[in-house]
Amino acid sequence: MDRFAVTYRLVAGSRADAEELAEAIALEDTVEIPRDVVPKGYIEDVVLGRVLDLVQVDDTVWRARVGYHIDAVGRELLQFINVMLGNASILKGVKAIDLTPNVEVRTRFPGARFGAEGIRSLTGRAAGGYICPVVKPQGSSPETLARFCYLTARAGADIVKEDHGLANQDAAPFRERVRIGAEAVNRANAERAEAGDTSRALFFANIGGHGDQVRELACYARDAGAGGVLLIPGLFGFDAINRLAQDTEFNLPIMAHPSHLGPYVLTPDQGYGHGMLFGQMMRLAGADISVFPNYGGRFGFSLDECAEIADACRSEGGIGRAILPSPGGGMSPERLPDMSAQYGPDCVFLLGGSLLRHGESVGEAIKACRATI
Amino acid sequence: MDRFAVTYRLVAGSRADAEELAEAIALEDTVEIPRDVVPKGYIEDVVLGRVLDLVQVDDTVWRARVGYHIDAVGRELLQFINVMLGNASILKGVKAIDLTPNVEVRTRFPGARFGAEGIRSLTGRAAGGYICPVVKPQGSSPETLARFCYLTARAGADIVKEDHGLANQDAAPFRERVRIGAEAVNRANAERAEAGDTSRALFFANIGGHGDQVRELACYARDAGAGGVLLIPGLFGFDAINRLAQDTEFNLPIMAHPSHLGPYVLTPDQGYGHGMLFGQMMRLAGADISVFPNYGGRFGFSLDECAEIADACRSEGGIGRAILPSPGGGMSPERLPDMSAQYGPDCVFLLGGSLLRHGESVGEAIKACRATI
Repeated sequence: MDRFAVTYRLVAGSRADAEELAEAIALEDTVEIPRDVVPKGYIEDVVLGRVLDLVQVDDTVWRARVGYHIDAVGRELLQFINVMLGNASILKGVKAIDLTPNVEVRTRFPGARFGAEGIRSLTGRAAGGYICPVVKPQGSSPETLARFCYLTARAGADIVKEDHGLANQDAAPFRERVRIGAEAVNRANAERAEAGDTSRALFFANIGGHGDQVRELACYARDAGAGGVLLIPGLFGFDAINRLAQDTEFNLPIMAHPSHLGPYVLTPDQGYGHGMLFGQMMRLAGADISVFPNYGGRFGFSLDECAEIADACRSEGGIGRAILPSPGGGMSPERLPDMSAQYGPDCVFLLGGSLLRHGESVGEAIKACRATI
Repeated sequence: MDRFAVTYRLVAGSRADAEELAEAIALEDTVEIPRDVVPKGYIEDVVLGRVLDLVQVDDTVWRARVGYHIDAVGRELLQFINVMLGNASILKGVKAIDLTPNVEVRTRFPGARFGAEGIRSLTGRAAGGYICPVVKPQGSSPETLARFCYLTARAGADIVKEDHGLANQDAAPFRERVRIGAEAVNRANAERAEAGDTSRALFFANIGGHGDQVRELACYARDAGAGGVLLIPGLFGFDAINRLAQDTEFNLPIMAHPSHLGPYVLTPDQGYGHGMLFGQMMRLAGADISVFPNYGGRFGFSLDECAEIADACRSEGGIGRAILPSPGGGMSPERLPDMSAQYGPDCVFLLGGSLLRHGESVGEAIKACRATI
């Protein structure tokens, strides 16, 4: 297959309109010039996107597959996204819902460094879902946050993740906060090992800073003892994940956070499908864990949409290793049995603000969570 | 005013629902924990967002203003966006439509380095709109692209802008392409000066590469003779613009391209208002020129939405200097008189693929454009 393909959901009143829209996407995301002035030869034959097929779904909805040559991309992820849904993101009624990679895509974008298997090995959690308390709120001192890290890690948390709103504010600047948070988790890990526990907690530092500081801050976190990092592709760009994932020196897992990405999925007519954005795109970028809002929480994702995300994180045909879905957003320990049944064992269960109700007894809540999954 | 404010358009069936949604935004974008566990003192009084007012617009639409303290932000633009519309971007029925900065915001994010006035001085175009041919399509050789650069610049173009799809592909790798493109424009400038023309064309190189290479590539372009750069905040992140705008050593104007940003504006219920995204946010980031799809072109922006963008680019109360709106997207020379009347003289008029119809006579088309505005 000399092309990779993107499937789009189109809104169009007739087959002629749908065809026109599909051809517009193929032009828009590659050469971006009128069809009649596309130069013959290499540009028309190779660079120009090509409509592969068009299927009617219902009265006004169509599904079009457009094939693109890797030459239109090059080797950088941002241009890959530009080709999939750059200017076409501004065309009304165009939603990208599936990516079919070819061998060039898989070679240039090999995906997650660790994935689901890697996280199992790094945590030493032989079986079952992962419990992931979220460290917050911002405005707290580094010491207060570190206390929460210690208590939850000591009680058996698998991943202790900083909130995505812990950036680099004066109340807890990135470096100080990450240093003592990682120390707290690793102290708990030492005590767990002493007590015969073969699993350990990974401290995931939220990269808060400038877009061009990601590698520097991520390497600082690693050197300070972090077991991974949290990154927001909707703010830093998907390439920030990709660069770290391909960085043999950094060599830690990456968790992707959905902040600022809402508009890409919240309308049926624009953006990306849920599975494509939170599954396929995260695997393409190289994230090991993909956070998204669980059904029945504060956000409006449905059970089906969440299942689609989990499937896309794990499907065999996807890019690189299977990765871990991580549902969150207003989740409480009471919902864990239901979530565990829904998502199965290869899943990172986020536990947020409700844990704060337990204060110094938060470890008991973590143990209760472990017992339920 | 100790807080900056963001105005949101809310969809809610009753005042109680609207109040709940507004309070949810204030929580979500700052502390992200349930209201009853927000710690007293500094976090509740300062860090937590505060609903300032709520006004009904019609049966199901409301307008809420939420005030935020700069302490929730820090000094980095990405966390600023995280506070304005991070997780709240995933709440159904929430659209950010206006930013009211305070003195801390203006100090930490001073806006465009050049703005409308600066571009007038850099181009030497004493009055009237700017003519900006777009160099494309991708797949062309650097020499073919450079020929177009020379011909359009020689004929009096003000800005010669690379297409946002010219990234770093093998057909025309970034460095080679930019070097000979800038050379071609500067050769034309030398001939214009020789002929007594006091204006000159600026070559804007599209930054195509990895997200962490922006400064390196931008400085390369400057050293190669470029007069500015094009950046895609929807792919590289808004901070990529902000970092370059604050970089005294780089010191060239920045044009922002709307690729991948469509879903933020194409539904009335989510994302950003047109003026906020393509006007206020671009000024906040520090762009000097904001590209957006013109009404009546290939994309679905209305005349009113385009007027809103132009107003937000220029309004007195906005952040930093007034910047230049740059409507494009399927624009042809024939539409220039209409556009010129609509947008006035402080505007960069993009001319895209239709110019390719003129081949070696493209200079005549540029001269005809100049005559019409």
